[in-house]
Amino acid sequence: MKALQESVLALSGGVGGAKLALGLADVLPQGQLHVMANTGDDFRHLGLHISPDIDTLLYTLSGKANEVLGWGLAGETWSVMDALERLRGDTWFRLGDNDLATHLWRTAQIEEGASLLQITDTLARQLGIHSHIHPMCEERVSTIVHSEGRNLPFQHYFVREQCKPAVTGFSFEGIAQASPNPNVMALLADEAFSAIVVCPSNPFVSVDPILQIPQMWTTLRDCAAPLVLVSPIVGGIALKGPAAKMMSELGVPVTALGVAQHYCDLYPDLLDYFVIDESDATLAPEIASLGVEVAIAPTIMNNLGDKQRLAQCVLGLVG
Amino acid sequence: MKALQESVLALSGGVGGAKLALGLADVLPQGQLHVMANTGDDFRHLGLHISPDIDTLLYTLSGKANEVLGWGLAGETWSVMDALERLRGDTWFRLGDNDLATHLWRTAQIEEGASLLQITDTLARQLGIHSHIHPMCEERVSTIVHSEGRNLPFQHYFVREQCKPAVTGFSFEGIAQASPNPNVMALLADEAFSAIVVCPSNPFVSVDPILQIPQMWTTLRDCAAPLVLVSPIVGGIALKGPAAKMMSELGVPVTALGVAQHYCDLYPDLLDYFVIDESDATLAPEIASLGVEVAIAPTIMNNLGDKQRLAQCVLGLVG
Repeated sequence: MKALQESVLALSGGVGGAKLALGLADVLPQGQLHVMANTGDDFRHLGLHISPDIDTLLYTLSGKANEVLGWGLAGETWSVMDALERLRGDTWFRLGDNDLATHLWRTAQIEEGASLLQITDTLARQLGIHSHIHPMCEERVSTIVHSEGRNLPFQHYFVREQCKPAVTGFSFEGIAQASPNPNVMALLADEAFSAIVVCPSNPFVSVDPILQIPQMWTTLRDCAAPLVLVSPIVGGIALKGPAAKMMSELGVPVTALGVAQHYCDLYPDLLDYFVIDESDATLAPEIASLGVEVAIAPTIMNNLGDKQRLAQCVLGLVG
Repeated sequence: MKALQESVLALSGGVGGAKLALGLADVLPQGQLHVMANTGDDFRHLGLHISPDIDTLLYTLSGKANEVLGWGLAGETWSVMDALERLRGDTWFRLGDNDLATHLWRTAQIEEGASLLQITDTLARQLGIHSHIHPMCEERVSTIVHSEGRNLPFQHYFVREQCKPAVTGFSFEGIAQASPNPNVMALLADEAFSAIVVCPSNPFVSVDPILQIPQMWTTLRDCAAPLVLVSPIVGGIALKGPAAKMMSELGVPVTALGVAQHYCDLYPDLLDYFVIDESDATLAPEIASLGVEVAIAPTIMNNLGDKQRLAQCVLGLVG
């Protein structure tokens, strides 16, 4: 058996998904976790290239995440934002001084012609991360939130308008021209992974952008590694972010079943295991009737122990 | 007499020139000083558009300049640079947290399609400046320092290599496609200025880039307002920066006479008055023989009083 076959590929958006990614990183042998991150949230702001989900993963996996704010870096300071506010500049997207260094570094590297894949890898190394963080693609893909006639770039919806507009749908600009991260594709072709884990991230704006890159979900479906998805909806509410609100506005049942249906409709035969929370155990038979194996586990991750335990449950399914 | 006819147009580079600009702003009626700034030093760094000479003028004229460092903002903090250093990013060009807000704001405005002229004007208003700061042109012009076979972008020569390379010449990339700031041209056409003052800035890398924009120096020569140039060389040394070192390397006599010759050779009939320091009084006859009227004044500006006195001397010549 090749050493790489102990490796796991996780698909993740930002904060919610990064929690399980941290658990997986902790319970897997060092360097065996590969995380493919959504970059549909990436945007240019104040001249800088910002990759919110990649940065959340970088900060979480390096132990530098700000647990109080729930985003950004621990011990952050805000000198630049304060000065920008005095200039009446745009401060709705809060960029801490330490966080800004990441964006400046990344933007400088992009201007020098480096690839987002290489940049992300270097940042992970510089932050002392042993796991591998892979942007979902090199190309620019931009998640657009449709809301009653308005088309909002994701961060405008998510941060500036605080998820208040009711959503009617989503689109991913540029996705038709994007290709799955070639490094991940090479590992998949090499049967490098023992499992693929879809972290409890937002189905519409974190996971769909990844899966809908041409060739992506069919490649994941066709590879030998089983795919485990952890429901981001527990007891009718979202573990993190606007997933529940979006489901409600889209007329989808706000339950783990609604999540399972979303994936089974859009990506037939992709899911092997669907992990739901203990509190949603009664939904198991109906989810199973969609043709996926249901696993029941405590999925709420309040501390590192919770994250590690959920990671162990997930890996136990395929071990 | 139109009110505008009390206005003065100053040409300036960074720190040295900004000192006299501040003196002029103080002794002229509020709002009557127009400063046309060199933008040949502008460059992109870490993804940001940086305009060092404009920023020095903004910070100096708003009373926010860092007198201790001699550049940047007073009370500056360095959180972002410290974080960037930890990422092993480029920190040779020191960007303070407050200074960074200016660059982020400017870069964001440029990305939204605003002109450098409008951006500079807005920044000046936001900083409470009553004088008018005009970039020399809207187009991108880049000063290149030639040094024994190497061509160094100006900030690389000036900051990263600390002016150590011996210069053999200069070029201004893009200058042939540039046009003089149209707002300044309109004021000149309207005979708005009672005097044009060339501040004691570096002839080669601060003033030449301005004057060599097509149509610039001939328009200044042909307008009715007298032109007064203040020598940046006093007693064989530069008031600020590498002017003396450059003159020496170029084989130009490192004296106020050398400066006068430079301008008279390149821009015949441009200078009406040439102001030299009291300590250089013996050079007056030879400079006068070049066809310019020589004025002798204390030109070293150590404090605000010095700046105001020199401004009054300059204005007295043409009053």
